[in-house]
Amino acid sequence: MKQWNIYLSGEIHTNWRQQIEEGCRSLPVTFTSPVTNHDSSDAAGDHLGHIEDSYWRDHQSSKVNAIRTQTLIQSCDLAVIRFGEEYKQWNAAFDAGYCSALNKAYITLHSANIIHPLKEVDAMALAWAKTPDDVIKVIEYVVTPK
Amino acid sequence: MKQWNIYLSGEIHTNWRQQIEEGCRSLPVTFTSPVTNHDSSDAAGDHLGHIEDSYWRDHQSSKVNAIRTQTLIQSCDLAVIRFGEEYKQWNAAFDAGYCSALNKAYITLHSANIIHPLKEVDAMALAWAKTPDDVIKVIEYVVTPK
Amino acid sequence: MKQWNIYLSGEIHTNWRQQIEEGCRSLPVTFTSPVTNHDSSDAAGDHLGHIEDSYWRDHQSSKVNAIRTQTLIQSCDLAVIRFGEEYKQWNAAFDAGYCSALNKAYITLHSANIIHPLKEVDAMALAWAKTPDDVIKVIEYVVTPK
Amino acid sequence: MKQWNIYLSGEIHTNWRQQIEEGCRSLPVTFTSPVTNHDSSDAAGDHLGHIEDSYWRDHQSSKVNAIRTQTLIQSCDLAVIRFGEEYKQWNAAFDAGYCSALNKAYITLHSANIIHPLKEVDAMALAWAKTPDDVIKVIEYVVTPK
Amino acid sequence: MKQWNIYLSGEIHTNWRQQIEEGCRSLPVTFTSPVTNHDSSDAAGDHLGHIEDSYWRDHQSSKVNAIRTQTLIQSCDLAVIRFGEEYKQWNAAFDAGYCSALNKAYITLHSANIIHPLKEVDAMALAWAKTPDDVIKVIEYVVTPK
Amino acid sequence: MKQWNIYLSGEIHTNWRQQIEEGCRSLPVTFTSPVTNHDSSDAAGDHLGHIEDSYWRDHQSSKVNAIRTQTLIQSCDLAVIRFGEEYKQWNAAFDAGYCSALNKAYITLHSANIIHPLKEVDAMALAWAKTPDDVIKVIEYVVTPK
Amino acid sequence: MKQWNIYLSGEIHTNWRQQIEEGCRSLPVTFTSPVTNHDSSDAAGDHLGHIEDSYWRDHQSSKVNAIRTQTLIQSCDLAVIRFGEEYKQWNAAFDAGYCSALNKAYITLHSANIIHPLKEVDAMALAWAKTPDDVIKVIEYVVTPK
Amino acid sequence: MKQWNIYLSGEIHTNWRQQIEEGCRSLPVTFTSPVTNHDSSDAAGDHLGHIEDSYWRDHQSSKVNAIRTQTLIQSCDLAVIRFGEEYKQWNAAFDAGYCSALNKAYITLHSANIIHPLKEVDAMALAWAKTPDDVIKVIEYVVTPK
Repeated sequence: MKQWNIYLSGEIHTNWRQQIEEGCRSLPVTFTSPVTNHDSSDAAGDHLGHIEDSYWRDHQSSKVNAIRTQTLIQSCDLAVIRFGEEYKQWNAAFDAGYCSALNKAYITLHSANIIHPLKEVDAMALAWAKTPDDVIKVIEYVVTPK
Repeated sequence: MKQWNIYLSGEIHTNWRQQIEEGCRSLPVTFTSPVTNHDSSDAAGDHLGHIEDSYWRDHQSSKVNAIRTQTLIQSCDLAVIRFGEEYKQWNAAFDAGYCSALNKAYITLHSANIIHPLKEVDAMALAWAKTPDDVIKVIEYVVTPK
Repeated sequence: MKQWNIYLSGEIHTNWRQQIEEGCRSLPVTFTSPVTNHDSSDAAGDHLGHIEDSYWRDHQSSKVNAIRTQTLIQSCDLAVIRFGEEYKQWNAAFDAGYCSALNKAYITLHSANIIHPLKEVDAMALAWAKTPDDVIKVIEYVVTPK
Repeated sequence: MKQWNIYLSGEIHTNWRQQIEEGCRSLPVTFTSPVTNHDSSDAAGDHLGHIEDSYWRDHQSSKVNAIRTQTLIQSCDLAVIRFGEEYKQWNAAFDAGYCSALNKAYITLHSANIIHPLKEVDAMALAWAKTPDDVIKVIEYVVTPK
Repeated sequence: MKQWNIYLSGEIHTNWRQQIEEGCRSLPVTFTSPVTNHDSSDAAGDHLGHIEDSYWRDHQSSKVNAIRTQTLIQSCDLAVIRFGEEYKQWNAAFDAGYCSALNKAYITLHSANIIHPLKEVDAMALAWAKTPDDVIKVIEYVVTPK
Repeated sequence: MKQWNIYLSGEIHTNWRQQIEEGCRSLPVTFTSPVTNHDSSDAAGDHLGHIEDSYWRDHQSSKVNAIRTQTLIQSCDLAVIRFGEEYKQWNAAFDAGYCSALNKAYITLHSANIIHPLKEVDAMALAWAKTPDDVIKVIEYVVTPK
Repeated sequence: MKQWNIYLSGEIHTNWRQQIEEGCRSLPVTFTSPVTNHDSSDAAGDHLGHIEDSYWRDHQSSKVNAIRTQTLIQSCDLAVIRFGEEYKQWNAAFDAGYCSALNKAYITLHSANIIHPLKEVDAMALAWAKTPDDVIKVIEYVVTPK
Repeated sequence: MKQWNIYLSGEIHTNWRQQIEEGCRSLPVTFTSPVTNHDSSDAAGDHLGHIEDSYWRDHQSSKVNAIRTQTLIQSCDLAVIRFGEEYKQWNAAFDAGYCSALNKAYITLHSANIIHPLKEVDAMALAWAKTPDDVIKVIEYVVTPK
């Protein structure tokens, strides 16, 4: 039976990942994610060398994070991309564009408040979910063998 | 002599495109862009059928806009992706991810105020420019035959 | 020993899938399929939001179904694409074109009555089978180690 | 200025191609098409050898037609895919699937009567047009430089 | 109007290329070919260094020839691949396999005497022509605008 | 430990495959092959329909065989391609071209008598072996972990 | 849990590979490498035929080594590319370029003395590590599930 | 007539590029190159922001240079890659690996003194030239229409 490999991209301040993982416990799915600890993620490259300038410190850490995120996206079957209402979350939109260019299926997860700024990202998504429970229902539907 | 095809993605409320086009007038470059009139862009699909629901109205218009943007990005040599300080501009980050997956060079253009939220987008960019003039200098440098 | 991953696309009103799966029981093959329950398939996206307009209701459900079908086709070794004599079944022909562009082998399964309208689809197929038993014989032949 | 290369796929019994070409006369577009003369198309391979069996006669002709259609689709920027209400037109749906796998933009053109059987084809299209005039408006919008 | 770029691969001992080029004089086509002078081709790498061993002399020349053939095949729209009845002509079959993997259309040109050993090459071809005149008719058919 | 998947293409009249499989028994390799029974291979498509004409009978069988060969080549890590001194064996050269276009490593196996006609095929190979024992040594070398 | 496949490219005169493998013992990673015994590597093709000329002897051996290296790089998730301060090590830079074209993540490992000549290689790397311990920390960070 | 687009990569301290361009004056070729002024190249990113740290200054400039080099390599038909006897020239080897992964033809140009460290780079090249004149002869041979 096919094991689906699902990448959970985006917002890190709520427990949406845990809810989805919980709700899919009995399904043939494996989840992967970026590092979701904000401080760890920002410091991902710090041990490679201290950098005063904030642009290049961020640059170094982002590239280290990209080792993880780029590789996991390239090998996933499906991505779920979560946008909270706060913050810019440009990395999440970047991941959506990356998936789209590779013809890789992705679902967006966000509230109705931000549908207008997300219209281009949603246009290429294969589903828009408003809640983690919506996502769980989609996953259950698509991964359950006939 | 190679004619460079440069796609100008992102923010539509300032005249950064005009500045770049002006500054590159004597170079072997052609510029393309998304439709930059906000109202036209939002209404891009309206003549295909009236839709009450704002999500699906946006969906229809975004897909029409994608005919233009996806095709122009796929055929460009270089993209310049502009982030203003306001607005979400997730479409711009989406374009950056799309370019990255295709191994297509892109430059970001944004102020220092937003380097932290743009760190993943900048990490895959081949240059970060703070002003249109910076972009012009990069373009001049890269397109001028030896 | 290589396990072949075979996608069964198309008509959902007869038991051709069961016949093939039954007949291949002893072979190193795994079968995948779209959701074949007509009502479930049409309603695939309904829990994401009620839509009056039939075009957009279909659109939402079709995209959810595409998460499954596009991903399974991308990862299959071989597709069997069944056309019944009734109905339009444009999705089946769409799957054939998708396979062809990816250089992925597919077999068509249909009666002699519809060979003329299927000529372009058959031209790119690697075999035309008239019965599930024909398909079983092809699969047995191609997957059995020397 | 970018010259758009647009492929017109599908139905051959009405003059929709002429209408679109007429309406786009002043735009930077070039149109290509399959051979649209039904008898010529069916006989495309006949001079390569007479074949009694209708399946193989069709096969031979379809492959000759594929030299044209596959090559033109691979090199187009955009496809318009027309479905009439009669006939199977599986070749048109095949072309849509082919475009989708290559991440190539396509528009469907069909009446509201057949939206349900075309839902999978429409889901991956970037626009659904009901009339040639709708198509012309979309093309004008997407190809006109900013 | 699209200019078709057609690569003429294979046998070099008869004037089939000239016949085809002559017959297509009025069509929007450009022809390319490998170097067809046998001695020049065998000596293609000799000026890079004298090699006693026949395997490595052939190796050096074949690689130089591959600069031309591989690049021209990668950029052609269609290949015509000619097999004479004598000689091994493995390079021609190699070119057919190369085209097939890239989903590039090719036509074979050979007599009926060798259809059995060419069956795998013909299976992936989009047409089998017996004479240069057959090829000309196919080319005329596929390149003539509707 | 990586399991190498090796495809054995070409000549079917000697026991070179058995010798290689025997010699690699203790290595982390799996071998796949086309159907090597000449009569079975020629008749691969016969049960799909009787065809008088030898070209189309061959065509039908070759396409069925291609389901196996194309899929196995696409998923192999390495191909060994054997040319005997007799017969045309254009299918073997076709497989070499297919591998080359996909940047997939292949080794040729043939005697010194035919190095001149195989020069283009050898030029893109990563090794030329004269005997099955040569091939075994290469495989042992490349698959043994450091 | 995803098992990461990591390719260790480059310098063979120090024990950096052992240090990294040791340090990653408890992580879900598998390491692959080129043949790191200098003499074996130089002689990789010798059993295929004795060659006087040093260029062609090297050529033959390098191609045999490429069977291993090209295949392992194509299937790895991440490459670590080590440059010592001595020797040319152009093969290591070649591997970096190969990874870059495939959008495959790689880390460089080298001292600060050679950052200027490695600037183009580092520019496309996702991290620069100065010591094996730096590499271990990056690997631990990127492969540890959230 | 096909215009060949040839990229000249590598060493910048001798006039090999001028010699080749001179020698090919009457051929249908266009040459492109990286920026070959050492100081300009090192300072390519300086106007984007002053950086004390030499690693990040180099990083910024290398990425700007990559806009040019990556784009020109992706669109060339053939690359000539020159290695002098001094300096590390890892960027040249990087370009070779990049070409190889894209199946793009390249020629190396270097003296016999450095064939051993260049053996992996030469193995994937389609020719090794010792002098600019050798390169000119190869180019003349491959681009001259039959």
